[in-house]
Amino acid sequence: MSASINRRFVLAKRPVGLPTEDVFRLEETTIPDPADGEIVARTLYLSLDPYMRGRMNDAPSYVPPLQLGDVITGGTVGQVVASRHDGIAEGDIVEGYGGWQEFFRLSADECRKVDPTIAPVSTALGVLGMPGHTAYGGLTEIGKPKAGETLVVAAASGAVGAIVGQIAKIHGCRVVGIAGGEDKCAYVRDELGFDAALNYRDGEFANQLAEACPNGIDIYWENVGGPIFDTVLPHLNNFARIPVCGLIHWYNVTEIPTVPDPTPKLMRSVLVKRLTIRGFIVFDFAHLQTEFLKEVGTWVRDGKIRYREDIRDGFENAPSALIDLLQGGNFGKMLIKA
Amino acid sequence: MSASINRRFVLAKRPVGLPTEDVFRLEETTIPDPADGEIVARTLYLSLDPYMRGRMNDAPSYVPPLQLGDVITGGTVGQVVASRHDGIAEGDIVEGYGGWQEFFRLSADECRKVDPTIAPVSTALGVLGMPGHTAYGGLTEIGKPKAGETLVVAAASGAVGAIVGQIAKIHGCRVVGIAGGEDKCAYVRDELGFDAALNYRDGEFANQLAEACPNGIDIYWENVGGPIFDTVLPHLNNFARIPVCGLIHWYNVTEIPTVPDPTPKLMRSVLVKRLTIRGFIVFDFAHLQTEFLKEVGTWVRDGKIRYREDIRDGFENAPSALIDLLQGGNFGKMLIKA
Repeated sequence: MSASINRRFVLAKRPVGLPTEDVFRLEETTIPDPADGEIVARTLYLSLDPYMRGRMNDAPSYVPPLQLGDVITGGTVGQVVASRHDGIAEGDIVEGYGGWQEFFRLSADECRKVDPTIAPVSTALGVLGMPGHTAYGGLTEIGKPKAGETLVVAAASGAVGAIVGQIAKIHGCRVVGIAGGEDKCAYVRDELGFDAALNYRDGEFANQLAEACPNGIDIYWENVGGPIFDTVLPHLNNFARIPVCGLIHWYNVTEIPTVPDPTPKLMRSVLVKRLTIRGFIVFDFAHLQTEFLKEVGTWVRDGKIRYREDIRDGFENAPSALIDLLQGGNFGKMLIKA
Repeated sequence: MSASINRRFVLAKRPVGLPTEDVFRLEETTIPDPADGEIVARTLYLSLDPYMRGRMNDAPSYVPPLQLGDVITGGTVGQVVASRHDGIAEGDIVEGYGGWQEFFRLSADECRKVDPTIAPVSTALGVLGMPGHTAYGGLTEIGKPKAGETLVVAAASGAVGAIVGQIAKIHGCRVVGIAGGEDKCAYVRDELGFDAALNYRDGEFANQLAEACPNGIDIYWENVGGPIFDTVLPHLNNFARIPVCGLIHWYNVTEIPTVPDPTPKLMRSVLVKRLTIRGFIVFDFAHLQTEFLKEVGTWVRDGKIRYREDIRDGFENAPSALIDLLQGGNFGKMLIKA
């Protein structure tokens, strides 16, 4: 890589189902110069997250979809190589939505400075970044955990699920994690301190869930959808809350199965059990940013919240890593070290 | 009818689909005497409501289901014929869940005195009773109408829907009602003052809904479920609220249709639009009872809220009237004058 070259991945074609590598095209451009009020940074870490799959569809969402040729959206941590803003100096570490590229240019108000003395800077994309903020915001505003309640979270070893469960433990909840594979379950139980961890690939999963939740479920944190949601539904207690954070089960489904309409059962449960199902995006909880960083930062420093990163080396491996993530191949917060 | 006979309807068998008259059995017993702290009242009005259908199934719900031989559940307004409670005198009018019988016995704390000088006592089962309280509570706590927003309510000429729409109008919302039939639509528009009223039986209903909601839908009050919900879903705005109050479309369905799974589309809407879907029962808002009676009572007195009753004469007609109600045959709050 020449110092004057900026490599980036753009959307070459729209994926159908699980993305393949030819969905992404590696391009070379020149490193941009900052305009007034902007910075340019060299990417240190690129965050890979399930939401990226949704951006690749040509469908309305909370932001406009990517267009063909657009740089793929992504959170980045970088070191500033040029700045035209008084508050940010060359050498500073910043976090922002730089996208899948080796150098990114953002206006100063589109990024925040990261203090490398608090924790490794990669955490600005994980436990102390968007996934942590997502967990903190959704729990605070929707989940509302109370001591003695039971919380269930799927993708429990992932970037968001791991933090959701640990915060709920701090609030005094019984916490049951769901993950794909025994190694992830062992981690969730032994390292993160969940009360139970269940492997949804186990044929006995439904029975295990019932056993692990003897007092029913008060909060189901929805990261996945699909069969796990169906298994959880009968165990929800009256007044249960369901923060809807993600639906990774459905992201790559190309053929919707034909089934007896599940809507009457779902809506009857909503009515009779007085459930709250509420979707959210981390941006909805921007007002909690300062509180989140302070509170979760303290918990991380004190060892009350642990985190695990799945760091893949090499910028050029971003497509294969995302494809792996979308199949549950990650173990912890997935990052590319550029 | 002899003065010493109490006629009552009990559950003779569990209905399959739409109830038939042989689901109900008319029995004669003697009029009970009140124990200490109780009253006995002669039923003046019996309330017929869609929720009654759910009680007839042998399925867990927010209260135990009716057992065979049980008196059918129902709200009643009656005149006290015997009292062993200091706060309630013979001749007083009371409202409570007396059930489908000509005389009912309740403890004094299971009923409330109705002031016949405020409004006709039948309203204690309608606009100033459970349906009004349902509308007021669900809007206050879940719908949270703001001036300029658009609210859509189905079963708009019914006991709850009519009040929901009128309260939302008072809050400055654009209000669109959905009803079955042109006569009901004309009433909703011309008498209740909704901004628009749509007949869901009209082949152009979907287009009419889009036209009637040029700024989308911020609150969808769910009384019915089924195809109306499906038609509403694409028009919901970001952060829309869906108080789930009833699902009359599904109450009598015996064969669940096989369809392409609608769950991914529904949950994706919840996530991307950050919808809130929340079920409730009027009892959840017991703490609003005083406020409801004061506020809605004032609106009724001032003519800001209108109501319509569909009163059927004769206690023995309760079964046929309920069957009619479950098919949308009522026009306004359905009552039996005993």
